[in-house]
Amino acid sequence: MNTFGQLFRVTTFGESHGPAIGCVVDGCPPGIAIAPEDFRHDLDRRATGKSRHTSARHEADEVEILSGVYEGVSTGTPIALLVRNVDARSKDYAQIAEQFRPGHADYTYWHKYGIRDPRGGGRASARETTMRVAAGVIAKKWLAEKHGVRVQGYLAQIGEVVPHGYDLSVVEDNPFFWPDAAQVPALESYMDALRKSGDSVGARVDVVADGVPPGWGEPVYGKLDGELAAALMSINAVKGVEIGDGFAVVAQKGSEHRDHIAPDGFASNHAGGILGGISSGQQLRCSVAFKPTSSLRLPVDSLDIHGNTVEVVTTGRHDPCVGIRATPICEAMVALVLIDQALRHRAQCGDVGTVSPRVPSVAVEAGSELEPQAGGKR
Amino acid sequence: MNTFGQLFRVTTFGESHGPAIGCVVDGCPPGIAIAPEDFRHDLDRRATGKSRHTSARHEADEVEILSGVYEGVSTGTPIALLVRNVDARSKDYAQIAEQFRPGHADYTYWHKYGIRDPRGGGRASARETTMRVAAGVIAKKWLAEKHGVRVQGYLAQIGEVVPHGYDLSVVEDNPFFWPDAAQVPALESYMDALRKSGDSVGARVDVVADGVPPGWGEPVYGKLDGELAAALMSINAVKGVEIGDGFAVVAQKGSEHRDHIAPDGFASNHAGGILGGISSGQQLRCSVAFKPTSSLRLPVDSLDIHGNTVEVVTTGRHDPCVGIRATPICEAMVALVLIDQALRHRAQCGDVGTVSPRVPSVAVEAGSELEPQAGGKR
Amino acid sequence: MNTFGQLFRVTTFGESHGPAIGCVVDGCPPGIAIAPEDFRHDLDRRATGKSRHTSARHEADEVEILSGVYEGVSTGTPIALLVRNVDARSKDYAQIAEQFRPGHADYTYWHKYGIRDPRGGGRASARETTMRVAAGVIAKKWLAEKHGVRVQGYLAQIGEVVPHGYDLSVVEDNPFFWPDAAQVPALESYMDALRKSGDSVGARVDVVADGVPPGWGEPVYGKLDGELAAALMSINAVKGVEIGDGFAVVAQKGSEHRDHIAPDGFASNHAGGILGGISSGQQLRCSVAFKPTSSLRLPVDSLDIHGNTVEVVTTGRHDPCVGIRATPICEAMVALVLIDQALRHRAQCGDVGTVSPRVPSVAVEAGSELEPQAGGKR
Amino acid sequence: MNTFGQLFRVTTFGESHGPAIGCVVDGCPPGIAIAPEDFRHDLDRRATGKSRHTSARHEADEVEILSGVYEGVSTGTPIALLVRNVDARSKDYAQIAEQFRPGHADYTYWHKYGIRDPRGGGRASARETTMRVAAGVIAKKWLAEKHGVRVQGYLAQIGEVVPHGYDLSVVEDNPFFWPDAAQVPALESYMDALRKSGDSVGARVDVVADGVPPGWGEPVYGKLDGELAAALMSINAVKGVEIGDGFAVVAQKGSEHRDHIAPDGFASNHAGGILGGISSGQQLRCSVAFKPTSSLRLPVDSLDIHGNTVEVVTTGRHDPCVGIRATPICEAMVALVLIDQALRHRAQCGDVGTVSPRVPSVAVEAGSELEPQAGGKR
Repeated sequence: MNTFGQLFRVTTFGESHGPAIGCVVDGCPPGIAIAPEDFRHDLDRRATGKSRHTSARHEADEVEILSGVYEGVSTGTPIALLVRNVDARSKDYAQIAEQFRPGHADYTYWHKYGIRDPRGGGRASARETTMRVAAGVIAKKWLAEKHGVRVQGYLAQIGEVVPHGYDLSVVEDNPFFWPDAAQVPALESYMDALRKSGDSVGARVDVVADGVPPGWGEPVYGKLDGELAAALMSINAVKGVEIGDGFAVVAQKGSEHRDHIAPDGFASNHAGGILGGISSGQQLRCSVAFKPTSSLRLPVDSLDIHGNTVEVVTTGRHDPCVGIRATPICEAMVALVLIDQALRHRAQCGDVGTVSPRVPSVAVEAGSELEPQAGGKR
Repeated sequence: MNTFGQLFRVTTFGESHGPAIGCVVDGCPPGIAIAPEDFRHDLDRRATGKSRHTSARHEADEVEILSGVYEGVSTGTPIALLVRNVDARSKDYAQIAEQFRPGHADYTYWHKYGIRDPRGGGRASARETTMRVAAGVIAKKWLAEKHGVRVQGYLAQIGEVVPHGYDLSVVEDNPFFWPDAAQVPALESYMDALRKSGDSVGARVDVVADGVPPGWGEPVYGKLDGELAAALMSINAVKGVEIGDGFAVVAQKGSEHRDHIAPDGFASNHAGGILGGISSGQQLRCSVAFKPTSSLRLPVDSLDIHGNTVEVVTTGRHDPCVGIRATPICEAMVALVLIDQALRHRAQCGDVGTVSPRVPSVAVEAGSELEPQAGGKR
Repeated sequence: MNTFGQLFRVTTFGESHGPAIGCVVDGCPPGIAIAPEDFRHDLDRRATGKSRHTSARHEADEVEILSGVYEGVSTGTPIALLVRNVDARSKDYAQIAEQFRPGHADYTYWHKYGIRDPRGGGRASARETTMRVAAGVIAKKWLAEKHGVRVQGYLAQIGEVVPHGYDLSVVEDNPFFWPDAAQVPALESYMDALRKSGDSVGARVDVVADGVPPGWGEPVYGKLDGELAAALMSINAVKGVEIGDGFAVVAQKGSEHRDHIAPDGFASNHAGGILGGISSGQQLRCSVAFKPTSSLRLPVDSLDIHGNTVEVVTTGRHDPCVGIRATPICEAMVALVLIDQALRHRAQCGDVGTVSPRVPSVAVEAGSELEPQAGGKR
Repeated sequence: MNTFGQLFRVTTFGESHGPAIGCVVDGCPPGIAIAPEDFRHDLDRRATGKSRHTSARHEADEVEILSGVYEGVSTGTPIALLVRNVDARSKDYAQIAEQFRPGHADYTYWHKYGIRDPRGGGRASARETTMRVAAGVIAKKWLAEKHGVRVQGYLAQIGEVVPHGYDLSVVEDNPFFWPDAAQVPALESYMDALRKSGDSVGARVDVVADGVPPGWGEPVYGKLDGELAAALMSINAVKGVEIGDGFAVVAQKGSEHRDHIAPDGFASNHAGGILGGISSGQQLRCSVAFKPTSSLRLPVDSLDIHGNTVEVVTTGRHDPCVGIRATPICEAMVALVLIDQALRHRAQCGDVGTVSPRVPSVAVEAGSELEPQAGGKR
């Protein structure tokens, strides 16, 4: 389905080259100030055409608020957001309308539905994620205002390149969301060479969330980590999700992995802020693997819908590394999971505080709020 | 919540040391032959006490069918399954009732609910997964009978040890679900030493599914891979999930990753059988990272619910590597996702075949059905 | 929430005097021809301003299809429909922005959300039902094409006036959806007098559906009648719902109520086409009670948000009998329930036909397809 | 599906003559004292065999709590309740295994599933409602303790007999839940004669809820009245549901129906405590129509599954008026809707009180709390 969330529900619609994309945000708490300009910052971070390292398609992404906001404040009724598609060059795609591009959803949509909109990938285009980012803006606002939660993503790997250091204060100052400013010129060269080669490359995005209180999440099938995994894996091109130390736990010993609890807080954060599916009050940490886009100028053999062999060459405008612009999308999905779990927690346990006043307050480890473990986690 | 699935819905209940655990399977198609003995094989694979490498707790896990089956056949009404807890030694846990065991859900349950059942981990115990396996048995049966789908898991890493070869025909013949028979004696020694040390270790489980037809999955928030990620991440102790090449895609080029389509089928399977959230007809491949259990005889500092520092020593019966027994659990979760998506696909697109008879039939690559990529995928 | 349905899901948004109203139809089967002009007929039936007996507000209700349709055919992705509000005279409502109009949702919205959009009733306006009708058009199309199902509503009572006869062929020929043409002039006079008096009146709407095959519905909480009741009661101003003989069953004997089954079909239809929550193949019959609108020119005492006593006079444009225009809305809700249940039935039981070929075919009773029981049912 | 509710979710299972019936209550707030004996009172009110006016089947209905309660208090994890079937005489039903009893779900189950459990009606038996009542006990407890809400049902009509007066204090003192003690002897005679005749009769049940605060309910598809309608219509044998004045509104004028708001509260309660789908703080009032049971000793023509004509005579033990025992079932369903809406309201609007402290407090009308409108509402 095209709805995300249980109580804070986001329904998106729209194809890459259709007249518009949009979403309906249902279940939003009343009383949040929301204006069209609130969406600008994150939509710009996600937008193409901002640097030569992303697709050249330029969309203004002007958000129109159609409902749910009265005199600048959310009323509790569904908030509909609309963005018109402007720079859609459908002729680019005419030649591939009947081809199955390798690595794309063409083949599977065709088998599932018996029909597909081939223009720009139709519904399978990452353009859909524009509305995830827009909905995420509302979620981030509420999380920050109500709970002081801050969600921050950054790029943790491009191809074989990993950061030499992790300074999240520089992430917004370069086109790669890269946490080491000194590496940025080298990355620019790397990407220029990649683009010239006509090839693409994968990436890893990390997202951290600070300020999440203990208690969010549900312990079995609605686990906080389970829903984060679903949310992040639902982003186009994602092939892996990790919480905390992720796959590194395979080679760890229990004595090494378990995070000691001292009177002044947890001594480490291998768990990534989640125990038994419920937030522990520590920093939430997750990682996402993005595959390299399959839309390349380099020709490749494939089939068309009639079973004929064809050579596919994609001449549209594409990102050589889709993981870069995915950073705000990952943040949005984390924020959407958090607000939904926060509301669900309030529903079932809204008065637990009065039941157990003895619950100790555990401090987040000093100095590590926005920094990965010393030495890198991998 | 404690319900999994949209149309084939499994609701589980029960605590580790309560009177019983059970589940309700709702939405099951009518006409499937189901008998209590059908559950034996997979429950035995998941059970403790079968070898010295798993917890010594012994549960017969006798399944009672309470409803939904008439004269040995499912009727379409909810199937309730019940397993009484027998070998629950709650006194083992008396000393830790007020302690927060590091790496466990004690702390987070306490903060969420203000109360918790400390006996054997209560609801957070992996005992809950018994019912996932039981429900998975029904799902596997329907998938096999209706679609010829076969789901198979195996252990792909314990600590630093990886298989030297992948022969899935030997997986059921050793207590580790290990795909290389020659390594089993060494693994036994490894586990004996680990158990003696009082420590635990992580593991990686791979699951493959063969015979999945193209078209299962929903393209945006109900993606097949997104739901697999949620399903697998919802298993106790899981910290990472991969589809296809998983995190290896970060370092791949697009020209390398995209799977060419030839007239006789796909030339490779980096995607793991899913494109755009929908099955492609290739082998489904996923990997899961299990953390080392935190229940160790080795003492560790922590707090109790009053904020006092305590030294925690866990003397109950625990697995030194929870990943081993997790293999059938992972299979069950994959099967539950598949049957649910199969039913959802039939709901929306049950007549698509008649609409587009031209859809080409693509063969799964020869010789690779139950074998990972040559040379290992990582 | 603002989403209706499990598999055929309709999410609506928009306020009476906001910039637009719209909906997202998710889960629609692919392959249905859909064009903007398809919505014209039913939207016109629902529209105000068509006769002097409804509100004078005039909305063109031009539907824009934003997504989910490619080259005139549904693709299986979400269909977004948008209607701009044109004739919204918000100044009409300025004086009542802080008043609680008796019989309206002003008071309850205020208590629930602490804020409300007072313009034209905001989200509580029946303008929202425009999108129900639009979504219902798609449902009706699929039901008719796939299953030959036809859904027809008519007015069965206005105030104390009941039809003298039931000829459904005349229903579309008068502004009251009235099944007895001879009474129409008297009804016109009745309504003229009512409008002059400044008062309003209630109404009863009947809806029948022919061609529903046996087997749709779920037997416990997803009963076909239960979902019809929820669907119809969710329409603005509805205070009662009946299936089949409805409240008349209170005074019936069992020997009278139970519908005999003869080789050539059911001998009567007191049940209204539903047994045990599942359709029986007979004509589906339901009735809906609409209260008289509370928006009157006649003054009434009330409070404002500050607790002060105020005299409320509603000068906006309103229907003297909201039940009249509700006829197509009721039809739409019935159609939405039916398509949703049809898809759910196909999901779980899509292959039952092959299991039990012996199921007898039972004919619907002769001559009664579109006629209530002789003598009227009450 | 067999799950009721969004956040307070009840999943029931079990057939009339299977080994057991049960339910899983998920999403229950932690901290509620729950003991097996808590279920006794309402289960006894629903039970058969308590007077000669109900079925002679005798079930002890001993509730076993399988999970979710630790040391007598709910923990927030799923509460599973189990009741073994004891007095199931399946031989009573052997003769009708292949017959379609008129007025029963036999025919529709057969068409839907191609298979059915004929023993005692299987899943379609009202025995399922035992677990609704059990789950309702938990809901009532929470509603009473947290919000002071009290839910009370009574019989408002049997056949043509209506109460002469409404004194709810006598309802629990007679086997008919009848609000006029003086009429009880006459009712006993009426029922004796009915039973002897072999026939059955319909009934109307009213339910009122006091203490519901303003603000519960969701304004469009999750309307409080819409969910009450679905909940009540989902009870076996229900054919109609009314809120407030119900079908009487059809003949009302708007000036008569709208409830004035005075400084000391509402002047009347035609709306039944709900405006725009949201509770107003007034008494909640609903009515339910129960059809006469179709299980009669009087023979009737029908078909069997092979299409042969058969004469059906039901010799099992049945209620001559199923509406009588339905009173606690109706109460339970109302309570389940209320707790679910209460939790959903807390999720979205849990902090609205602090946003709008100016909301006026409106008193419930004096003297009418547990009494219908003077003169009766119909």
